[in-house]
Amino acid sequence: MATAVQDTYPEDFAHCYGCGRLNRHGHRIRTFATATGTVTEHDPTPQYRGAADFAYGGLIASLIDCHSAGSAAIFWMRAHDLEVGDEPAPRFVTARLEVDYVAPTPLRPLRLEGVAEETGERKVVVTTELSAGDGVTVRGRAVLVRITAP
Amino acid sequence: MATAVQDTYPEDFAHCYGCGRLNRHGHRIRTFATATGTVTEHDPTPQYRGAADFAYGGLIASLIDCHSAGSAAIFWMRAHDLEVGDEPAPRFVTARLEVDYVAPTPLRPLRLEGVAEETGERKVVVTTELSAGDGVTVRGRAVLVRITAP
Repeated sequence: MATAVQDTYPEDFAHCYGCGRLNRHGHRIRTFATATGTVTEHDPTPQYRGAADFAYGGLIASLIDCHSAGSAAIFWMRAHDLEVGDEPAPRFVTARLEVDYVAPTPLRPLRLEGVAEETGERKVVVTTELSAGDGVTVRGRAVLVRITAP
Repeated sequence: MATAVQDTYPEDFAHCYGCGRLNRHGHRIRTFATATGTVTEHDPTPQYRGAADFAYGGLIASLIDCHSAGSAAIFWMRAHDLEVGDEPAPRFVTARLEVDYVAPTPLRPLRLEGVAEETGERKVVVTTELSAGDGVTVRGRAVLVRITAP
């Protein structure tokens, strides 16, 4: 069973509404390393609708934000020959978030795939494609800054 | 007592988690016209924390997203010599969202002020400054597209 990077965040950083394993109310999203990138899957509940039966834009932005922070930790660890679970993950915060809503996103199981555009010592840039099974509905790009290290 | 633009959204478009007056679970944010722009105030509850006692990035993005959609409706109505409450507000959806996290945002009452960068017939661009009392912590920019008209 693979370990999600959020499972290895230090406890002080595990209360986020988006990805904190210790936040009872939040999305508790979990991000995993893949061969070349990262993946996060999330099944939104109906309360997070926007117009009609589509996901609201804020949920999409939240998912991309937290998925990108987790992805940044994974890419940084990979650059240091570390795997998720080897050490507490470094914690990144978002400096800039860009979200392009290409098409409406249905309230169905969603999949976010992340790629590293840049992996520096303090700064990581992650691009993300979000789909609901039928092609990409949202593209994201996030610039993240490291605030803790293992 | 001023009317928030979200109070005049058609019922079909009033279920959004961010700004739907009919969503029992969501933020139910309300955006008002000012002399030259727009304003949204929101007091986040502790569950929406991110790291430490700061607001999580997804909440910030959500607020800017829904505040910008409401602001777009206000700017469009103003360009058509309409005031909030005259008619059901036109409904805009977000095509692109940019969020710059300049500084951490405390979990305190927040104020978002919106300005129109561009007001077209179908496309409106809104820039936003978010503050928690002590200067701007986040800057937003959203490109919105109209999907309904009064």
